Amino acid sequence: MRLHGYFRSSAAWRVRIALNLKGLTAEHVFHHLRRGEQRAPDYLRCNPQGLLPALEVEDGAVLTQSLAIVEWLEETRPEPRLLPGTALERARIRAFAQAIACDVHPVQNLKVLARLREEGWPEEKVTGWARWVIQEGLEACEKLLGEGEGPFCFGATPTMADLCLIPQLGNAKRFGADISALTQIKAVAAACADHQAFIAAAPENQPDAE
Amino acid sequence: MRLHGYFRSSAAWRVRIALNLKGLTAEHVFHHLRRGEQRAPDYLRCNPQGLLPALEVEDGAVLTQSLAIVEWLEETRPEPRLLPGTALERARIRAFAQAIACDVHPVQNLKVLARLREEGWPEEKVTGWARWVIQEGLEACEKLLGEGEGPFCFGATPTMADLCLIPQLGNAKRFGADISALTQIKAVAAACADHQAFIAAAPENQPDAE
Repeated sequence: MRLHGYFRSSAAWRVRIALNLKGLTAEHVFHHLRRGEQRAPDYLRCNPQGLLPALEVEDGAVLTQSLAIVEWLEETRPEPRLLPGTALERARIRAFAQAIACDVHPVQNLKVLARLREEGWPEEKVTGWARWVIQEGLEACEKLLGEGEGPFCFGATPTMADLCLIPQLGNAKRFGADISALTQIKAVAAACADHQAFIAAAPENQPDAE
Repeated sequence: MRLHGYFRSSAAWRVRIALNLKGLTAEHVFHHLRRGEQRAPDYLRCNPQGLLPALEVEDGAVLTQSLAIVEWLEETRPEPRLLPGTALERARIRAFAQAIACDVHPVQNLKVLARLREEGWPEEKVTGWARWVIQEGLEACEKLLGEGEGPFCFGATPTMADLCLIPQLGNAKRFGADISALTQIKAVAAACADHQAFIAAAPENQPDAE
């Protein structure tokens, strides 16, 4: 397998965590998002959408969209489970993952912030936008955790929820969002900070880190 | 089952289509999004996030996030399949669904547009933002369809992809996005327009339609 990513792409980061949790190795190819390398002809031949991440799998097939990739990994390499439990428990894990992947991350991603800058917004206002999106979104996520026993979002082992949460917390830090009141999310972050799959997937530990 | 929705909520619309495709009936409860009824105390007792849709299922459990609800329906009421085929085919269907549910819809939803209005943007500019997001997003989706045989996004029967596409096309129409060049998407839209599950789920056919 070959994963196309970028050290700071939240979506690629999710897939790196998933691969590590499942004990899978992939060749990593990095494309510099800010320099627009995801729109280079060579990469467009692989993924015409010009988006990261993309996972090249058997027979030259290319998978896109981080959560679709994680679902594919779960179906084809089931253990350890990233969606454990009953159908109802899986629904809660997926809802948490989507509360981040749908409701938070896309509204503060590079493309949206670049567009706001094009509209003449000063940097401070652009950062304020990202902070607003992330803070409101993570407050909602804290509620979704309910009375979990931890140490991870939904129990004793990391799931699809944790692999979405941690990259989003990376963005929270970067934009200065205040998560000090989110006690459960902070406890999960602490647990993940000690977990090798998360450590190895962190942006600062990628070869293209700046 | 009881579905909490709003006639014009794209995410609730997706779940209505899914229920119809699976031949399931649910009690429908409508909450007027623009009047903020999703934040009424009665509803917050059901879903503390104050978001639509929510699906109340057995034993008082409440499911949130439209695609997590659709995955739960697929696991608990498998036929007819909304995610048919091989793992690779399912990955393509999910990627298409997420290209809409993550990359398009959240960046043009009510909350984001309201915030842009608060920033002093005139209505024309707010509409222009929505049009930009939808047009770019649907152009990407057209590429994801590849050389499909139709009549639906991924073959002879509607899948999770179609139930995301049709509500997004509703928004495209509302904001005046130009989809005239997207021939495959238009062909899928025509097929869905003749399908009873889609007709019954359309906003104009809901009791709370305005």
